[in-house]
Amino acid sequence: MNDAGFSATDATHMARAIALAKRGWLTTRPNPRVGCVLVNEGTVVGEGAHLKAGEPHAEVHALRAAGAHARGATAYVTLEPCSHHGRTPPCAEALIAAGVARVVVAMVDPNPQVAGRGLRMLEQAGIPTSAGLMQAQAEALNPGFIKRMKTGLPWVRVKLAASIDGRTALANGDSKWITGPQARADVQRLRAQSDAVITGADSVLADDPSMNVRHQELGSWRQRISAEQLMQPLRVVVDGEARLAPPLKLLRCEGPILLASHRGYPAIWPDGVTCWQGPRQAQGKLDLSALLTELGRREINEVLVEAGAGLAGAFISAGLWDELVLYQAPKLMGSGARGLLQLPDFPAMAAVDTLTFSDVRRVGADLRLTLTRQER
Amino acid sequence: MNDAGFSATDATHMARAIALAKRGWLTTRPNPRVGCVLVNEGTVVGEGAHLKAGEPHAEVHALRAAGAHARGATAYVTLEPCSHHGRTPPCAEALIAAGVARVVVAMVDPNPQVAGRGLRMLEQAGIPTSAGLMQAQAEALNPGFIKRMKTGLPWVRVKLAASIDGRTALANGDSKWITGPQARADVQRLRAQSDAVITGADSVLADDPSMNVRHQELGSWRQRISAEQLMQPLRVVVDGEARLAPPLKLLRCEGPILLASHRGYPAIWPDGVTCWQGPRQAQGKLDLSALLTELGRREINEVLVEAGAGLAGAFISAGLWDELVLYQAPKLMGSGARGLLQLPDFPAMAAVDTLTFSDVRRVGADLRLTLTRQER
Repeated sequence: MNDAGFSATDATHMARAIALAKRGWLTTRPNPRVGCVLVNEGTVVGEGAHLKAGEPHAEVHALRAAGAHARGATAYVTLEPCSHHGRTPPCAEALIAAGVARVVVAMVDPNPQVAGRGLRMLEQAGIPTSAGLMQAQAEALNPGFIKRMKTGLPWVRVKLAASIDGRTALANGDSKWITGPQARADVQRLRAQSDAVITGADSVLADDPSMNVRHQELGSWRQRISAEQLMQPLRVVVDGEARLAPPLKLLRCEGPILLASHRGYPAIWPDGVTCWQGPRQAQGKLDLSALLTELGRREINEVLVEAGAGLAGAFISAGLWDELVLYQAPKLMGSGARGLLQLPDFPAMAAVDTLTFSDVRRVGADLRLTLTRQER
Repeated sequence: MNDAGFSATDATHMARAIALAKRGWLTTRPNPRVGCVLVNEGTVVGEGAHLKAGEPHAEVHALRAAGAHARGATAYVTLEPCSHHGRTPPCAEALIAAGVARVVVAMVDPNPQVAGRGLRMLEQAGIPTSAGLMQAQAEALNPGFIKRMKTGLPWVRVKLAASIDGRTALANGDSKWITGPQARADVQRLRAQSDAVITGADSVLADDPSMNVRHQELGSWRQRISAEQLMQPLRVVVDGEARLAPPLKLLRCEGPILLASHRGYPAIWPDGVTCWQGPRQAQGKLDLSALLTELGRREINEVLVEAGAGLAGAFISAGLWDELVLYQAPKLMGSGARGLLQLPDFPAMAAVDTLTFSDVRRVGADLRLTLTRQER
């Protein structure tokens, strides 16, 4: 295994493999998004992407496309080929059987228990391997899968929408609409790529939302996926005091639901609704850290928190978040309007964390700011 | 005068003239920023920029540099050459006397009283002219001068700084620092380019600011101007009830001061302080519209409002603004912290104006959002 000396041609093919991996953006979960390109004597002879758990991995699709041309080819894969028998046979074996001559991966398996095994299996069969080409870009394909493999916890993305003066609704509650249609379509895309969406009982009681992904509201992403291929996220409601009861719009939409409470519910819920009873914190609220552990146990990679100022603030002030996505509308709503996040009072500016703008872009007439916790 | 048919070569030279005009960014006021390039048989023979009121205009600098090579040259000027005897003789006459063969301007004079006169003077001397090349870029050099020439009023830029949740200070008042050093240097540059800076008596009473431009805090702009060349803006304090009295830090820094009140002051102010008594509005506040008219009368092109939530909100809710510059720090301060702008309550989202993000960029670790009122 060799970590250096990649050529520009190597990078071109890996970039293509990363682009292929994105075909599974909304559909591979709980598996990672992976792409593969097979190149023989300078010619691309096979391409593949993993699209759906239980279906073939990216390498298998590429090998099938290449047929006999796979013999002697170089395989570019965004993630180390698997070495274990899961729902499909190990891809490392398939690459060996097809006679590939070299394997280049962007990153090794993030699970420390198995990292490097696939590459070792290839090396033992006499196939030279190298790793680390475009690793950062490959990691960005699977923040949730990587975090869960390393820590058991999902990647937590907190979505917020506000005016530039940080307001989410007028004093009278009106909030339709702060952001424009492109931003709202982008939120549908975020939901569609999430394994779970979390909201709070207050929001459910106030707005009776569906919390599902609506294909017709996916904007430009509609061309990339059919209504049938769309996967609904697990819809999670934090309902500490178990105040919810049917009927709710939530129940009228397909897809699983998890009600998270520190109290028990009576037997009022239909099939498809799971009641999870978690620990209560000293402050009397549900322990959100325990909830995330439970979601990780359920193979949830990416969580989208779409909640009000209280619950979103609770995730943030507890440090239980990885990424903040703030849609900002070019509007001024004034200090009498509702604030974005409830956080405990800070004693001084020095106690306020400095985040990092990891991405800033225009989405229609609005801005989308992505922030991470790490200083870079 | 011909408005079309510019070549790529024409555009290259006009782009250079616009770049030259920026040399006067901090120093031409109350004059406009203007650049000029003279090109003879494909060769640039002279360049010039207007740098300071009372000193030669851009065309004169370029003609002096070109000497005899001006004869037969094309002149590219960002603004129509002047036709009147002001502090300097008319540039149109100078171009004619030098024997230039063609004149291309980015925009005609914005003052409707004299627009086109300079070009007509040239045409009558047999020199073909054309106008409108890179007009938008040329207009962006002088938003204040153009607005004042057209309306008598200055361009009003409201500067704000906040966390991404729209907070300007913690509940206890601590606000040092929300934004980083690059953003604060950028604000010094905004002050330095402004003819006047407006703040409110509340801010002066709370913080006792100097409101001056500090050369050592100009960041990268220090290389572009010496401490001696720096011009201090007129510092304007809106002090409706005439609550201010010496001593104040304001008085210890060089540069003129205007105190704007609807009441009279006793004779307590030193030389260099002008007390302007304006009309009182029905709500008991100083009429800000009358203040802007007065500033226009004093040849103020660009006004920077650097005020608290109350006064900045008053300019915005009265519609007395042209541009909003919001420095946004990657921080979350929480809904208990102080809000950005006091605005009257809106009855519904439909009553909230949609602004336009005209520029979005990173300034150090922060963002600078520029917004305008016009839908584009």
